[in-house]
Amino acid sequence: MHLLNDPVFGLYALVATLVSLHLAVLGSYTGFVRTRRKVFVNPEDASTFKATGAEVDHPDVQRTKRAHMNALENAVPFLAIGFLYALSGPSKVGAQAYFFTYLGSRVLHSIIYLVGKQPWRTLMFAIGQAAILGMAVHVLRTVL
Amino acid sequence: MHLLNDPVFGLYALVATLVSLHLAVLGSYTGFVRTRRKVFVNPEDASTFKATGAEVDHPDVQRTKRAHMNALENAVPFLAIGFLYALSGPSKVGAQAYFFTYLGSRVLHSIIYLVGKQPWRTLMFAIGQAAILGMAVHVLRTVL
Amino acid sequence: MHLLNDPVFGLYALVATLVSLHLAVLGSYTGFVRTRRKVFVNPEDASTFKATGAEVDHPDVQRTKRAHMNALENAVPFLAIGFLYALSGPSKVGAQAYFFTYLGSRVLHSIIYLVGKQPWRTLMFAIGQAAILGMAVHVLRTVL
Repeated sequence: MHLLNDPVFGLYALVATLVSLHLAVLGSYTGFVRTRRKVFVNPEDASTFKATGAEVDHPDVQRTKRAHMNALENAVPFLAIGFLYALSGPSKVGAQAYFFTYLGSRVLHSIIYLVGKQPWRTLMFAIGQAAILGMAVHVLRTVL
Repeated sequence: MHLLNDPVFGLYALVATLVSLHLAVLGSYTGFVRTRRKVFVNPEDASTFKATGAEVDHPDVQRTKRAHMNALENAVPFLAIGFLYALSGPSKVGAQAYFFTYLGSRVLHSIIYLVGKQPWRTLMFAIGQAAILGMAVHVLRTVL
Repeated sequence: MHLLNDPVFGLYALVATLVSLHLAVLGSYTGFVRTRRKVFVNPEDASTFKATGAEVDHPDVQRTKRAHMNALENAVPFLAIGFLYALSGPSKVGAQAYFFTYLGSRVLHSIIYLVGKQPWRTLMFAIGQAAILGMAVHVLRTVL
């Protein structure tokens, strides 16, 4: 079990953990916004918080969920391809560039989504996708 | 390829497989509930089952999907962080505690979500998040 | 770091990368369809594209998102169980059968979902689930 001692794999472990915690924070934040807006689609939640039920979530909750879903959709390819990329023997500088670019662009994407600014949100999305694509090319070149 | 022979990694393999099958079961269950409720948002499904199309899913299908999405949102951080935690050289007792706590809390979360009981659903969500957070701290301490 | 040199693990790396890129393509495609249909639930997107805001996405965007979500829900169990399966010492022929069956069924699932054909979509979903289940049995037999 000495994979974590490898400098590049250790870097992956660090960034993959932060990307995963980012998802966990967005999940809990959705619950926080829902409780503050007091609009609940689950009747059992509405009765717990003495609120009335609703057909759809409050717009602020919907926005938080969209930000969370977008983070999740991108985290899955990143976690898988980033792992394989870390195993493909990249340079430490290359790994740092890909991993921190992805992490930074996605943290900014969530913040920008929650405050609702364009075209910055789309730019952050594109940067994250580019990082995934770059690592994918590296993996495919190694295994093909 | 002897990672699976390591006791802690073998435990991860067992629990990660069960967590993944849990997701697959929820996916198929959504299709089952949709077919039983005969409300279809895809016109091609409605015509296959000789039902009328709809703008939104039946409330029971929406609930199943929310349970599934919540399971998926949490499974991704668990699968990634749990993997890195298993590689970080934890004690077998610690790994058993984290892995089975996560698995148990999430299976109960799904059941409780489907029957609609609070505050037990939120409690199970919090226990699952705590298990992820505890393992994340362990990984970060190893790589930092 | 010689996992990628193992023939079965190299196969996993190839297919896991393609499955992950499939998700990335569906994510970008959703944005493409949204821009073409000019229906935006985020007011900041509507004003960027000089369109009016909307309560819900255009039906074509909703369909693309359902296809994407279905791909994501299945990719997570596949990526986790496929990884553990690759570590469990399967034959190369068995791994090829499982991995390419999964990849093929899911690529077809997305295409069929976007054009709206039944019962082919459900058939592709079932084939993908069967591949995941078969690999899960193999992993469980190895670790139990």
